Amino acid sequence: MGNQFGHLFRVVTFGESHGVGIGCVIDGCPSLLPLCEADIQKDLDRRKPGQNAITTQRAESDTCKILSGVYRGKTLGTPICIFIPNADARSGDYDEIAKLWRPSHADFAYDSKYGIRDPRGGGRSSARETAARVAAGAVAKKLTGNLNIRAWVESVHAISMPTVRQTPTLEEVDATPVRCPDIPTARRMEEFIKKARSEGDSLGGVIHCRIEGLPAGLGEPVFDRFEAELAKAMLSIPATKGFEIGSGFAGTCMTGSQHNDPFCLDENGGVCFVKNHAGGVLGGITSGATVDFRVAFKPTPTISKEQHTLTITKESVSFSGKGRHDPCVLPRAVPVVEAMAAIVCADMTLRNLSAKGKEI
Amino acid sequence: MGNQFGHLFRVVTFGESHGVGIGCVIDGCPSLLPLCEADIQKDLDRRKPGQNAITTQRAESDTCKILSGVYRGKTLGTPICIFIPNADARSGDYDEIAKLWRPSHADFAYDSKYGIRDPRGGGRSSARETAARVAAGAVAKKLTGNLNIRAWVESVHAISMPTVRQTPTLEEVDATPVRCPDIPTARRMEEFIKKARSEGDSLGGVIHCRIEGLPAGLGEPVFDRFEAELAKAMLSIPATKGFEIGSGFAGTCMTGSQHNDPFCLDENGGVCFVKNHAGGVLGGITSGATVDFRVAFKPTPTISKEQHTLTITKESVSFSGKGRHDPCVLPRAVPVVEAMAAIVCADMTLRNLSAKGKEI
Amino acid sequence: MGNQFGHLFRVVTFGESHGVGIGCVIDGCPSLLPLCEADIQKDLDRRKPGQNAITTQRAESDTCKILSGVYRGKTLGTPICIFIPNADARSGDYDEIAKLWRPSHADFAYDSKYGIRDPRGGGRSSARETAARVAAGAVAKKLTGNLNIRAWVESVHAISMPTVRQTPTLEEVDATPVRCPDIPTARRMEEFIKKARSEGDSLGGVIHCRIEGLPAGLGEPVFDRFEAELAKAMLSIPATKGFEIGSGFAGTCMTGSQHNDPFCLDENGGVCFVKNHAGGVLGGITSGATVDFRVAFKPTPTISKEQHTLTITKESVSFSGKGRHDPCVLPRAVPVVEAMAAIVCADMTLRNLSAKGKEI
Amino acid sequence: MGNQFGHLFRVVTFGESHGVGIGCVIDGCPSLLPLCEADIQKDLDRRKPGQNAITTQRAESDTCKILSGVYRGKTLGTPICIFIPNADARSGDYDEIAKLWRPSHADFAYDSKYGIRDPRGGGRSSARETAARVAAGAVAKKLTGNLNIRAWVESVHAISMPTVRQTPTLEEVDATPVRCPDIPTARRMEEFIKKARSEGDSLGGVIHCRIEGLPAGLGEPVFDRFEAELAKAMLSIPATKGFEIGSGFAGTCMTGSQHNDPFCLDENGGVCFVKNHAGGVLGGITSGATVDFRVAFKPTPTISKEQHTLTITKESVSFSGKGRHDPCVLPRAVPVVEAMAAIVCADMTLRNLSAKGKEI
Repeated sequence: MGNQFGHLFRVVTFGESHGVGIGCVIDGCPSLLPLCEADIQKDLDRRKPGQNAITTQRAESDTCKILSGVYRGKTLGTPICIFIPNADARSGDYDEIAKLWRPSHADFAYDSKYGIRDPRGGGRSSARETAARVAAGAVAKKLTGNLNIRAWVESVHAISMPTVRQTPTLEEVDATPVRCPDIPTARRMEEFIKKARSEGDSLGGVIHCRIEGLPAGLGEPVFDRFEAELAKAMLSIPATKGFEIGSGFAGTCMTGSQHNDPFCLDENGGVCFVKNHAGGVLGGITSGATVDFRVAFKPTPTISKEQHTLTITKESVSFSGKGRHDPCVLPRAVPVVEAMAAIVCADMTLRNLSAKGKEI
Repeated sequence: MGNQFGHLFRVVTFGESHGVGIGCVIDGCPSLLPLCEADIQKDLDRRKPGQNAITTQRAESDTCKILSGVYRGKTLGTPICIFIPNADARSGDYDEIAKLWRPSHADFAYDSKYGIRDPRGGGRSSARETAARVAAGAVAKKLTGNLNIRAWVESVHAISMPTVRQTPTLEEVDATPVRCPDIPTARRMEEFIKKARSEGDSLGGVIHCRIEGLPAGLGEPVFDRFEAELAKAMLSIPATKGFEIGSGFAGTCMTGSQHNDPFCLDENGGVCFVKNHAGGVLGGITSGATVDFRVAFKPTPTISKEQHTLTITKESVSFSGKGRHDPCVLPRAVPVVEAMAAIVCADMTLRNLSAKGKEI
Repeated sequence: MGNQFGHLFRVVTFGESHGVGIGCVIDGCPSLLPLCEADIQKDLDRRKPGQNAITTQRAESDTCKILSGVYRGKTLGTPICIFIPNADARSGDYDEIAKLWRPSHADFAYDSKYGIRDPRGGGRSSARETAARVAAGAVAKKLTGNLNIRAWVESVHAISMPTVRQTPTLEEVDATPVRCPDIPTARRMEEFIKKARSEGDSLGGVIHCRIEGLPAGLGEPVFDRFEAELAKAMLSIPATKGFEIGSGFAGTCMTGSQHNDPFCLDENGGVCFVKNHAGGVLGGITSGATVDFRVAFKPTPTISKEQHTLTITKESVSFSGKGRHDPCVLPRAVPVVEAMAAIVCADMTLRNLSAKGKEI
Repeated sequence: MGNQFGHLFRVVTFGESHGVGIGCVIDGCPSLLPLCEADIQKDLDRRKPGQNAITTQRAESDTCKILSGVYRGKTLGTPICIFIPNADARSGDYDEIAKLWRPSHADFAYDSKYGIRDPRGGGRSSARETAARVAAGAVAKKLTGNLNIRAWVESVHAISMPTVRQTPTLEEVDATPVRCPDIPTARRMEEFIKKARSEGDSLGGVIHCRIEGLPAGLGEPVFDRFEAELAKAMLSIPATKGFEIGSGFAGTCMTGSQHNDPFCLDENGGVCFVKNHAGGVLGGITSGATVDFRVAFKPTPTISKEQHTLTITKESVSFSGKGRHDPCVLPRAVPVVEAMAAIVCADMTLRNLSAKGKEI
């Protein structure tokens, strides 16, 4: 029962990589929001496979269909089911996988936990499941309104872009296939990814994300802190190994007097901050400053280089990945990071409605 | 309603730093576990203030009392309430704080969210709340049995201990006040903390934690992955800014062929791993390998150096922290990290009971 | 966010009466259970419209499709999505309804709550939604195994069957269209329903249900008592107005010495009960005796007799129901009552796995 | 983990009848509500034992203490813990009970489920636990504001008061020890209760409750309907066997044309209803009409008449109840019914804040 995220804006995803399809049900989306399939498709297109030379060649249009919860272009306040059929499933590719445990894949863990797994394309553990999250995130964005949620690829392996002060625009991020807004760095990343693929290897990296426009007050201490929910959201994305907000791990090398963020007043007399080492949260609650976080992705475990592994009967075999896959998941993970961030913002926005007694 | 953690082993904490006391209620602890106050006190004593020269001098014995759920030394399966009175609350110290927002503290955020806050010792946002987590964690450990959950201070500011292969023992960790098991490093850390205090400043650092003995199969994908719940648990601890598991951020600079963890067989024919870049999880589920993670703590925001800030009426003032506080929270955060890890393990153990249909 | 039922065996339903279709997602169903569409279809066929002369003539085959969570005939432990397309939706029938509030229907309440509603066939408030519950119930029965969950129509209006000691069989219940196992009473009910329809009126009644084979120990006091969850489950079915378990309202006229159920021993030395005024629960936990409860259904609010009502602009109008509908919902509600009972049993069975510490 | 009620206004209760004490934690109460112990004590005094000649003579003042969540007379938005010590616990009375299963008590069920129970005064299964609910209900009333939630004893055994059109006042209800507002009926009930006690027997009855002042729109279909949550709340109270809303079981004998509630307009042009067979709910959502429901309570299982039962080793013994107890729980259950109704209203009020998108 771990396929649900959110407390009031509640998303359940379902589906296996090579089954009938994948989808989500959103329970708790308020009524009267404008919503149509094009709103969702726009985001799905950024995640879909086969976009360009550095992604998997599985040919999925990822065309979504709204099955419920919307009437004449507006949300009804009832559950919204969005379905994405699997079109290009080639199950034959996966017969060998059923008989062994791929290193650093979920095969062994699913067998241990459930005593059964769908081996076709990784089944439920496939990153294909994240398409359903992107669909749900598109609905979340309808709710949160004027937020600017922007993620980009900051590093691939050791190739890292310079730090930016200004949050990149969607156009800047999407200007290159690798979704790194610094063009020279993006070119180097792209070449490096192509080289890794040609060598049968894969790469990881870091995605940076910012949320601009959140009011102060979101987050539910002591456990459901804004950054705690965000960390959970990010670590629930396949292949992630780390999360940091604001100064993160680097901030552990500052002193308190360096790290503390003094308050100041903006031109309208509003409270603002001179620095933002906090990354937009104080005591688990948004401060009104930009939420700023980074997510670490490991190199894709599917590689075509030969590896040694065990069969399900514990015999040693050699094996090389043959399915279609991405040599580096980061470019396609950018919209997934944004979607999960949007879902957290939507849920926290709704939860915050009951914070103050006077407003009820 | 964010003061609850866990799905089946469910912990609610309550209490403000200078109110009557703090505590927790655990709903969902199975029956028949041996439990007494000494089991809990042992862990509380590791977190309590005033232990030594590098912690706050607030004199709290943190003596706990079990109010319910235990009969003749055994858990009843009913809610366990544990209460820890506040003894040395000096509310007079905090009059000034009520009128301003301390930089990088929760004051402004609580005012924004709730329109009211208890300024005495930070009220609910005080790290004193974590004593209730330590109490709950002690109960969780009774449930999880033979696990070895061990945290230690790996770095303070830029002072970092060498990497260890062997997990340190409790005795090794507690050998120095700073809870770094490498004695020479611990000495340097201690001196550095004393220096920071004397300068009215504060320090952050990194806590490393390992969980040994977990079976394969814990974790509930796709959202409630083991590492996602762990990340949430850690980021819910005050002053944390980052989390990484296994290879973490450093792993983003490896290739897939370097990063993948091949399977092997141990002397008993059991499945094991040559390396553990995964940090003990595959696809959101424990693999049976050691769970290995790190948590970043920012420098304590309370410093006695003079700072500029805003009053609640947005006037500029200068201010310096006068309450009793820790110049570096890491030594006392070690049992908190362990407690939250234990709660995640307990909850995931119970949730996993319903994974396989055949066993029901 | 009220479209979810169950804590570990968690069902979310979605869909409007005249939208694309309706369905459910079950998150938390254990792996390795045999499941195919025929298992589900069997139950759906008992609920589907147009079965006979006393039900609505809407022609829906209610053919279900499993979209996820099953591989080679077995559950994977991943979310199971079941979809039932709407085939015979005649939206044109409902133009008038969009402009007024039908008496004792949900129209006014949905407008008040959401500021929008799908008027086609009642939209989300249609009893058509219960088909998704029947589908989920069929899966729940796979989990609970050898239970006998049997509901039947005990009364329609003032026509009531004699009390039975023996629980009727499925064949006895389904022997007549009205699903009352006492044939003479069933004939009278059927005639009375036809008469009500011919007069443009409708009828209510009582459904009786028994669950045989539950072990002692299910139920989670103090709030999630077995009977409390059952009451919620039943009162969540459209048109229900009452629930009683065991002696129910009649039992309030007994004395304690009459009402108490003495223990006895069965032939195998097992604990049993001389009487069962309790209806199978003690202190919110099943006792091992048969769970026995009754549910009151109001007469269908849709009648073709002329009624006076208000338009959405609060003008008085006269109106008569013209859509296809049931003059008495009870015969088709029988499988819905059974399905909700099965879901409660499945959820409580899973929750009980963590009651005792020794078994973990 | 069934000791929690509510989704946003979340109440956890804890404590055994003869342990240190009982209490509750409320997580999710909005900030800025005025609250002090006297607000709570007022309600607790209506439930406390030893009030008069027809209640148990256990001498508990049920004096409550707020341990957290309130500062200078206002709620902080943080968890509110309320504690009620057990003062007059006589554990010696209960040695015999530890060795047998009292008929129609929870003893056998707790032993079956948990393999352990606290036999002193029924432990967790004691109705004493409901004091914690009354405390939580008092806080809920602070949130819901101007509602009139009024319960009263409508019948004891076969003695029933005439139906009232006007909801009785608190003073009318509390005018007699039996809490039946019809004085002549109350006198007869009181005599009958005394007679039952003198005979070593006990009585049940029906409590009627009305909620006036709720706006239209509360309730979360399809599962968390207002009446479904109310049914669960009521059936979670010890000794309850039935719930009905509006026309209830009697309404099953009406036709649709009789049962339907036509809309009308009040003097201010607001929507109202000519009748209220619905009992204030339409499609699971409040309609703005008075919520009207009834709850059946079985006769107290504790009687001093001799009974035959089984020991925990399954030997036959005779036994008669000797602990202090109520011959009829209804008078003291009146504030418990009101408290649970208040908690449902508070929770549903908060949940409804996110129904409409335009208001966010």
